[in-house]
Amino acid sequence: MTEQAVSERAHHRHLEEARDGILELLARQALESDLTHRSPQRSHGVVIQIMERTHRVALEQYLARLHPADIAYVLENLPVEARDLAWARVRADQRGAVLLETSEPARRALIGDLREDQIAAVVSALAPEDIADLLSSVPPETRVAVLARLDQPDRVEVRKLLAFPEDSVGASMDLEVLSVHQDVTLEAVHEMLRKRGKLPVHTHEVFVIDAQSQLRGTLPLERLLLGDPRARVAEQMTPEPVYFCTDDPMADAVSAFERYDLISAPVVNLHDHLVGRLTVDAVVEAIQARAQREQLRQVGLSSEDEDLFSPVLASARRRWPWLAINLVTALVASRVISAFEPIIHQLVALAALMPIVASIGGNAGNQSVALVLQGLSQGALTPWSALRIFVRRELSIAIVNGALWGTVVGAISLLLYGDVKLACVLGVALLGNLVVAAAVGSLTPALLRRAGRDPAMGSSIILTAATDCLGFLIFLGLAALVLV
Amino acid sequence: MTEQAVSERAHHRHLEEARDGILELLARQALESDLTHRSPQRSHGVVIQIMERTHRVALEQYLARLHPADIAYVLENLPVEARDLAWARVRADQRGAVLLETSEPARRALIGDLREDQIAAVVSALAPEDIADLLSSVPPETRVAVLARLDQPDRVEVRKLLAFPEDSVGASMDLEVLSVHQDVTLEAVHEMLRKRGKLPVHTHEVFVIDAQSQLRGTLPLERLLLGDPRARVAEQMTPEPVYFCTDDPMADAVSAFERYDLISAPVVNLHDHLVGRLTVDAVVEAIQARAQREQLRQVGLSSEDEDLFSPVLASARRRWPWLAINLVTALVASRVISAFEPIIHQLVALAALMPIVASIGGNAGNQSVALVLQGLSQGALTPWSALRIFVRRELSIAIVNGALWGTVVGAISLLLYGDVKLACVLGVALLGNLVVAAAVGSLTPALLRRAGRDPAMGSSIILTAATDCLGFLIFLGLAALVLV
Repeated sequence: MTEQAVSERAHHRHLEEARDGILELLARQALESDLTHRSPQRSHGVVIQIMERTHRVALEQYLARLHPADIAYVLENLPVEARDLAWARVRADQRGAVLLETSEPARRALIGDLREDQIAAVVSALAPEDIADLLSSVPPETRVAVLARLDQPDRVEVRKLLAFPEDSVGASMDLEVLSVHQDVTLEAVHEMLRKRGKLPVHTHEVFVIDAQSQLRGTLPLERLLLGDPRARVAEQMTPEPVYFCTDDPMADAVSAFERYDLISAPVVNLHDHLVGRLTVDAVVEAIQARAQREQLRQVGLSSEDEDLFSPVLASARRRWPWLAINLVTALVASRVISAFEPIIHQLVALAALMPIVASIGGNAGNQSVALVLQGLSQGALTPWSALRIFVRRELSIAIVNGALWGTVVGAISLLLYGDVKLACVLGVALLGNLVVAAAVGSLTPALLRRAGRDPAMGSSIILTAATDCLGFLIFLGLAALVLV
Repeated sequence: MTEQAVSERAHHRHLEEARDGILELLARQALESDLTHRSPQRSHGVVIQIMERTHRVALEQYLARLHPADIAYVLENLPVEARDLAWARVRADQRGAVLLETSEPARRALIGDLREDQIAAVVSALAPEDIADLLSSVPPETRVAVLARLDQPDRVEVRKLLAFPEDSVGASMDLEVLSVHQDVTLEAVHEMLRKRGKLPVHTHEVFVIDAQSQLRGTLPLERLLLGDPRARVAEQMTPEPVYFCTDDPMADAVSAFERYDLISAPVVNLHDHLVGRLTVDAVVEAIQARAQREQLRQVGLSSEDEDLFSPVLASARRRWPWLAINLVTALVASRVISAFEPIIHQLVALAALMPIVASIGGNAGNQSVALVLQGLSQGALTPWSALRIFVRRELSIAIVNGALWGTVVGAISLLLYGDVKLACVLGVALLGNLVVAAAVGSLTPALLRRAGRDPAMGSSIILTAATDCLGFLIFLGLAALVLV
């Protein structure tokens, strides 16, 4: 080796060290500003910068000091290869917490990279409800294998939680609850908590039970702090709290949390024994999940099925039912048109104008659907009297707008085709189809709900089918009557 | 008066008394079962039953013992006339709390029935943030008049709150915060709280400030209970908590609450002084409001404008921009068709088949839009690399489904019209339009977001315009090439 080569090498190493120092400084600075006003976007930028310089140690150090939710955000926003690299740099004891914060598709991909014993190691530090949450994202074979590797008590509790239906309160509850007997004094409770040391996350109240471990009330920490230490728990507790049963649907719990501004609530089993608690963060998660589900359901997709990592063929197949329904309604509309082929042959302009009637009807009707869906979800439209007002209102709006826009569209067609009769037919058909759209759009969601169906999913299909078919029928029918 | 008449009257009165007794019993029973497992639906049923018997006292008593949120639910679900009757029976001191829990349209109607001095009386018992919340639902003239009737300190604070932009943290914060100095002992804090007596609702932590009243940390009640009483607050507090500035958009606060599972967080002003706190119930409300807003925005409506009590003409006018945009896109599609009038004249079947191509394309494209919107809202699709994967995926699905459903539709048209060439043109056009739909549907939301526009609102219009125009163009264009 020449002297020059050695010196160059030393220089190179020196440079590398300097770069490491700068990177570390960069990471530390970013971290400090993150901690006061956290920004996962900024963390993401820092990780990308560190990764571009392929600096493993700095990456590991930076990630180790981030909040698990921020690590999750960073991982979700990295390209797949970079994500795998970064995931390998997340400390083993943080992995469980990070997985809990990632969205379902990313979670499946990250867990998919781990072996069964690695998964068992990652989850073993977590609470049973969190283990159950993570295991619901792995294939059944893996789940069984991982369960077999867990400690006996954890395994029993996780199995119990996994047995609850997915949308039940039981599946979302925490098992770690603090309960005290109603006959002890506040002082005794205080002493017990002190001995225990740390309370479970989000503990704002302890639950009060009687000798049969039946739920009697809740004792907020505030009361424990401010109440007379010699008073009995039964005197200071909030009696008859809102509580849930493990089998209650999560949707009911969500409404109750919203309605009564709850932070946490006790959960009892079928024998009225206290078995867990539901906290507001689980409720917030459920609200988010519901909003997303509804958005997808409106276009015939389900959030459980659709993830970016399932094979293309499987995803394509999942869209078939929706496409098939759509095809049937489109074919019916097509048959309506073909019944009028002779008049279209006489006046080809009809073919060009007919989609205008159908399209504006469909859009206006979807506005009615959205308003009724909102009324239904707020619980404001259940009785028929309220719905009647609504339909009357939507019909009035449709007549006003139909008269106006019918005139506008008629005038435009007059300019284009110079045919007064055709313009009148077009304007009247537009008015007629807006009225159809308002009636169908207001009534369909309510009727579907009444029939126990999902109003968000079915309403749009039915509405569009109606506005297409009736739009063509009204327009071409009027044309056949007036123009021939 | 005959003896019989007197006896009949006495009998009638006797019956009435018995009925009242039964009604009271009914109300009490309903109430008791409500309190353990509250059900606003059941309360609603009881109120209807009492009202049908026009029993005012029973109604008043029943309502007085319900949770304000349940009274709000009952009122929202009564027909307008019954609602006004029941509202008159709600105790004056409960009215403020009830109004806070009602949805915007019902709230406006209920407040609208009150005179200015009545509104002032109703709100005077509330906290400033709640007064500001209610006053944002009344017309500006009434607001000024009510403000003038409030006490000086309340007036100042309410004015301050009303000045914050509607979607800012400042507009949603609570003003009542407990703050302690970092240098005092836990014992001193405990003593201070005990003297104070009752804590503000949802107090789970007190905020820690320094001599310049700058925020230093938070002290959870748990730490106060379990920590060494002689320890200084600074040693026991959680330093560097997540906090918000009054001007921060509420959307940022919502993400932070979700990400870090917060229950409450301090709010500071521009000088970093602690001025309020944001609690999880305000965040849950914001999440709900956002979900509703997005649903309406997708059909060109805004939740502020749309309420069932605004006059029909005003509501009709609010839908004009959306109808106008829709009219323009429909006219463009119509011009595309009219460019092919000669070929339609030759083969009228084209007119009947062309809406199939447009309609299936529109529906499939809206599925892509929904998936990308979901990716965007989860923050999982910001970098272009992730979007690229997504577009590739949606295109693959479109090709698979286009090939399949193109064949199905082609076969059906072959049965209907017996024209092989026409069937091929239809099938290929359907495939082509599904590819257009996948590309436009995946890219538009991301591009709109990039341009700082609302992706939920614009994407569907742009998508439908594209699938209509290009659907007609591909189908009729191919027909012109192949069939003539």
